[in-house]
Amino acid sequence: MKLLMINPNISDSVSELIRAEAQRSASPGTEIEVLTAPFGVAYIETRFESLIGAYATAQLAAEHHARYDAVVVAAFGDPGLGGLREALPVPVTGLTEAALASAHLLGHRISIIAISQRIQAWYREVVDSYGMGSRLASIRALDRPLSSIGGVQDEHAQALKALAERAVDEDGAEVIVLAGAPLAGLARSLKGQLPVPVVDGVSSAVRHAESLVALQPGAARRGSFSAPPVKPNRGLTPAMQALLDPGQRAQAN
Amino acid sequence: MKLLMINPNISDSVSELIRAEAQRSASPGTEIEVLTAPFGVAYIETRFESLIGAYATAQLAAEHHARYDAVVVAAFGDPGLGGLREALPVPVTGLTEAALASAHLLGHRISIIAISQRIQAWYREVVDSYGMGSRLASIRALDRPLSSIGGVQDEHAQALKALAERAVDEDGAEVIVLAGAPLAGLARSLKGQLPVPVVDGVSSAVRHAESLVALQPGAARRGSFSAPPVKPNRGLTPAMQALLDPGQRAQAN
Amino acid sequence: MKLLMINPNISDSVSELIRAEAQRSASPGTEIEVLTAPFGVAYIETRFESLIGAYATAQLAAEHHARYDAVVVAAFGDPGLGGLREALPVPVTGLTEAALASAHLLGHRISIIAISQRIQAWYREVVDSYGMGSRLASIRALDRPLSSIGGVQDEHAQALKALAERAVDEDGAEVIVLAGAPLAGLARSLKGQLPVPVVDGVSSAVRHAESLVALQPGAARRGSFSAPPVKPNRGLTPAMQALLDPGQRAQAN
Amino acid sequence: MKLLMINPNISDSVSELIRAEAQRSASPGTEIEVLTAPFGVAYIETRFESLIGAYATAQLAAEHHARYDAVVVAAFGDPGLGGLREALPVPVTGLTEAALASAHLLGHRISIIAISQRIQAWYREVVDSYGMGSRLASIRALDRPLSSIGGVQDEHAQALKALAERAVDEDGAEVIVLAGAPLAGLARSLKGQLPVPVVDGVSSAVRHAESLVALQPGAARRGSFSAPPVKPNRGLTPAMQALLDPGQRAQAN
Amino acid sequence: MKLLMINPNISDSVSELIRAEAQRSASPGTEIEVLTAPFGVAYIETRFESLIGAYATAQLAAEHHARYDAVVVAAFGDPGLGGLREALPVPVTGLTEAALASAHLLGHRISIIAISQRIQAWYREVVDSYGMGSRLASIRALDRPLSSIGGVQDEHAQALKALAERAVDEDGAEVIVLAGAPLAGLARSLKGQLPVPVVDGVSSAVRHAESLVALQPGAARRGSFSAPPVKPNRGLTPAMQALLDPGQRAQAN
Amino acid sequence: MKLLMINPNISDSVSELIRAEAQRSASPGTEIEVLTAPFGVAYIETRFESLIGAYATAQLAAEHHARYDAVVVAAFGDPGLGGLREALPVPVTGLTEAALASAHLLGHRISIIAISQRIQAWYREVVDSYGMGSRLASIRALDRPLSSIGGVQDEHAQALKALAERAVDEDGAEVIVLAGAPLAGLARSLKGQLPVPVVDGVSSAVRHAESLVALQPGAARRGSFSAPPVKPNRGLTPAMQALLDPGQRAQAN
Repeated sequence: MKLLMINPNISDSVSELIRAEAQRSASPGTEIEVLTAPFGVAYIETRFESLIGAYATAQLAAEHHARYDAVVVAAFGDPGLGGLREALPVPVTGLTEAALASAHLLGHRISIIAISQRIQAWYREVVDSYGMGSRLASIRALDRPLSSIGGVQDEHAQALKALAERAVDEDGAEVIVLAGAPLAGLARSLKGQLPVPVVDGVSSAVRHAESLVALQPGAARRGSFSAPPVKPNRGLTPAMQALLDPGQRAQAN
Repeated sequence: MKLLMINPNISDSVSELIRAEAQRSASPGTEIEVLTAPFGVAYIETRFESLIGAYATAQLAAEHHARYDAVVVAAFGDPGLGGLREALPVPVTGLTEAALASAHLLGHRISIIAISQRIQAWYREVVDSYGMGSRLASIRALDRPLSSIGGVQDEHAQALKALAERAVDEDGAEVIVLAGAPLAGLARSLKGQLPVPVVDGVSSAVRHAESLVALQPGAARRGSFSAPPVKPNRGLTPAMQALLDPGQRAQAN
Repeated sequence: MKLLMINPNISDSVSELIRAEAQRSASPGTEIEVLTAPFGVAYIETRFESLIGAYATAQLAAEHHARYDAVVVAAFGDPGLGGLREALPVPVTGLTEAALASAHLLGHRISIIAISQRIQAWYREVVDSYGMGSRLASIRALDRPLSSIGGVQDEHAQALKALAERAVDEDGAEVIVLAGAPLAGLARSLKGQLPVPVVDGVSSAVRHAESLVALQPGAARRGSFSAPPVKPNRGLTPAMQALLDPGQRAQAN
Repeated sequence: MKLLMINPNISDSVSELIRAEAQRSASPGTEIEVLTAPFGVAYIETRFESLIGAYATAQLAAEHHARYDAVVVAAFGDPGLGGLREALPVPVTGLTEAALASAHLLGHRISIIAISQRIQAWYREVVDSYGMGSRLASIRALDRPLSSIGGVQDEHAQALKALAERAVDEDGAEVIVLAGAPLAGLARSLKGQLPVPVVDGVSSAVRHAESLVALQPGAARRGSFSAPPVKPNRGLTPAMQALLDPGQRAQAN
Repeated sequence: MKLLMINPNISDSVSELIRAEAQRSASPGTEIEVLTAPFGVAYIETRFESLIGAYATAQLAAEHHARYDAVVVAAFGDPGLGGLREALPVPVTGLTEAALASAHLLGHRISIIAISQRIQAWYREVVDSYGMGSRLASIRALDRPLSSIGGVQDEHAQALKALAERAVDEDGAEVIVLAGAPLAGLARSLKGQLPVPVVDGVSSAVRHAESLVALQPGAARRGSFSAPPVKPNRGLTPAMQALLDPGQRAQAN
Repeated sequence: MKLLMINPNISDSVSELIRAEAQRSASPGTEIEVLTAPFGVAYIETRFESLIGAYATAQLAAEHHARYDAVVVAAFGDPGLGGLREALPVPVTGLTEAALASAHLLGHRISIIAISQRIQAWYREVVDSYGMGSRLASIRALDRPLSSIGGVQDEHAQALKALAERAVDEDGAEVIVLAGAPLAGLARSLKGQLPVPVVDGVSSAVRHAESLVALQPGAARRGSFSAPPVKPNRGLTPAMQALLDPGQRAQAN
């Protein structure tokens, strides 16, 4: 099984964290590839940065998906996920969606621990968009500058752990999600140090993607997640055009 | 990895369906055992039958869980699941919870196809209790008598498929869940015949249980899913007593 | 009118509190009987203890209901209530359901004052299951060990009153519910000492049960609260069997 | 115990229906008085008519409440209820609020059967304002002209019964509320003819008002249901002035 | 374009604030008239005062609307708005409704800054009644006595600004609404001093009323906002009668 | 006042419809410019097409916004709106957001009439994302192929009108929104032909944008709609870079 993980940010250091945790989490026989967005920002905290990341992710997915069994949008907030689910012929998930699926199996009230104050509003809207707002006990976040995005979890591990403790004690969290690709692997490092189950987006996404490939639930051929109707388009990369008009792609081959 | 599946109903024929689909779905190296409730009813459709099934499941889980890595409540409706998550030291899931986790990864609006009219109100309450009522496009159900609970899917496959088609076309379902242990395996038989992804509770539960064991998110030591506080009890089986007072159990050993 | 109150816990001291407040609250001519669960725990705080209490309550109700006009599940959290409403031919209510009905008539935003931190998550889920989560201003609870369950209200009256004051002043509570059978009668003792109306589950349940008997709204013969469909069962007490198959019971007589 | 019921409409024939059902429903020793609005419309179907009925009810309540133990706003839709709960020193309820309290004790999903198409939007908003919209299975209503408001239930009994049957079979209603003072007593006439429990607003309000008087939950002295803060007013009847400034009233006496 | 603004309170000083801000906000060519309620209270904080204000507003609207292109209920809380929308042939809005429309265009999470603690519960219910409760970040209010209602904004400008700052920093407010006619114009005075956009009810209502007149969306001739069905009425002013029976009015002319 | 409207689709014919209706709706003195996306699809119906349109819109807005007082995302569904509100220093709205603001002022329950079956799921998610899902009576859509996107309203006017009538009669719609830029101007053509108020996205957006410019509510300098924090970026157009790092832009000038 080959799994494509797309980092919608331009940070190679974060791609490295994603790759490492994905490989630790994968089942035997699963191959992981991680691609980094060719354009965008260092890490997405806002709706505007997310729309850039969504487009970059879509271009990479269009170009590369054909050689993979499943695709993961490897940023918490899942930029572009809904659209890619329509357009790609393989299963696709994202870190938030996958983390919520895991958390849902471990407790009712979920707290998300995040790396910046600013990122919280966007995360909240994404959780709400999945109809799971009532499951959210809280979002708590670091309130200090990040000296390097790839080093957040090393630099702030104790502060992040303290936020998780407070979410359990003050907000009633029954499960903790350590949010954001920059925290990939932190749940593993903190194993046994937190009083409730801890979920990591990257490992959750890898395992759920494997399960989707294994269970073969079938693709959407009707309804709102089937491929977009073919219609005129302009100014797109050939790979994007091919996603929008698979027949054209078939003819071109 | 050893996985204990508990059928909260007394139907051995349904336990057989569960075992077959679980084995087909499991990863290499996963061993499956299925136990059947020693008391209760043939199949649970109501809140009253569910409270009986919950107690039977709790007794079996208390008696047998120690030899397993995870436990599955193998009836849609998940009788007793929340309680067992508190009391058992290993991960536990149920068919509804697991099917919803899978469906959540495949589309937004979910329809459940069920085996009887009566069962729908209970299912709806269970989905609502997971805070996922806004994801439910509809529940549709057979409206004819069942001649044998173990043979429902053979006897009514076409009617069930037609219900799924209507859920897609009239209710906007983007994912179908074929609900209830008596339908275990039907998603596999219908592969490719439905226009949207199809989810089966048994295979979802097996895969998610495996993932929880692999990811080792940790147990709840605080909060509402930690073990019930130790306090006086009376009239319970030794295994149930041991769950309620693990110290006592340790001393007894 | 004869009213059966079932304490789902094994605590005779709490049954005594229930009986005393029920008799003080009942209309002239209402006879009260209180039964105590033959198996279970001292007091229910968790989902797991609740499923035990539900089964014990069901067994007592099955055995004894025939001589009564109505049945009350006399624990806050209402273990087994939904199931008993299906199975019993007489009206049935529970302390949470009844307290919420009273509180609904007295104000919009309701706070629940409870006897332990642990009990809060379970209470919240029960209120949510009644679709009344938006009415909940807060749940506040004692955070100290209980030296005896029958003596909670004597020992902690001032602390409980202080929690109620805070619920009014900080959470916007317009009505207070003093929750749990161990607090039966406390609302009466605190009369005039709190700044908003105060509701007690036991007295509410007695009065509402009387009203249901008086108004004779009729039983459910269709829909999800009619009796469970007759089907094979196994391993149940004769009284439980009779509830599940009233025809069989009629033949047996 | 003396109970004041205020018909917010000008229809004496409906006041007669209210009085008859209230007296049939009341406990021994309860005295019922029914007053009819001196201004307003024949029956309230709209928000605009409701604001007129609310003001008329407030004036009657201000003038007459002092001789009563509790007050009932005797129109479905409860015009003015929230305001009167603030201003009156005795318990007050209304037909919708009371019917929902009863229905809440009998089943989860509630359908309301109403006398006109137009009335449905207003009823829905009132149920939503009580935070109980999720309990509503449906509102169904007559779609024919009413030749006389006092004769609706005689003229249309079969049509109303048919609407209730459809609510059970098509909407999943577990309880039926026959809505509106013009239907007072119909639940009693239809006893045993409907497949689920049936609730009447007038008898529910009488019984719940009696319970509130008996349980003496206490008045609101803080929070949003305490008396409005004293401040300048102008142009009101002396009784309304006295409600707004009880000190002034006390001085005047 | 002529715009009628009705102050549902008896405070001429507040009417003056409304008039001044309305004229500052209006487009060229819009004429503003402000009427003050002939009966009622100095300022509405409660449900009871609101039902008085609603009736006073309805009487003024009935009497005067014919000479205007649109009507504004000029109190936050919008007393009587829903009813007037049914009864009046011209567009009508209110300060809360209009402020929410503006705030909706500026951010997702909205905080309301109010002039008294008591007023908050009523405001919350009004926002909920518009189905916009999920948009509400918080309501924060002054907690000191108001020496004169017309001078609130002068006397308490700094305290109100501080409440707005806290709403942004602690509650996540993305837009601030300065609530209540007594604060009309304060948003303008504070321009540039708050870290998020600030909305004023009066200026929003004026602009939205102008837009509705310009866009001519058409009147409701069916559905729940069409004119109330004609039926017997009694005891109303001629203008109110004419609203309830426009044909009669036409005949009378 | 200068208003920039960006058509996120590549269809010049639709840009022409937008321009015409915008000019008809604008106040005297408002200048309208409409730009058409340089890349993308003919009309957006899906989440995937929306993420393309969002990126195209962002690029145009980044390049051109400096000469305008406000920006409108001129497609129903508002692709990119939330992001642009963060990044642009001027007010920005979109057709859905603006239409909902207008509809909110005209009735409670809103139906959206759309041009294709496929488009409905996306529209529903957008309305839900604004927290206004409870206001939605229904979405109804054409179910026939569109021969040309610019000619939809001419070709299908009667079918669209019939859908609106059904939304009023069967779904309880109190306001109709004719959705999508291809229907710009249809509300105007149908004036007086529908039984409830009708809202058009383009004219609503123009009027609301004008009001925002006039009322000067201030920009967000804190909170989730302030400008994205400055951080490294790569591969973006100079205009996009300038939006992400306004200081850099200032230096460059």
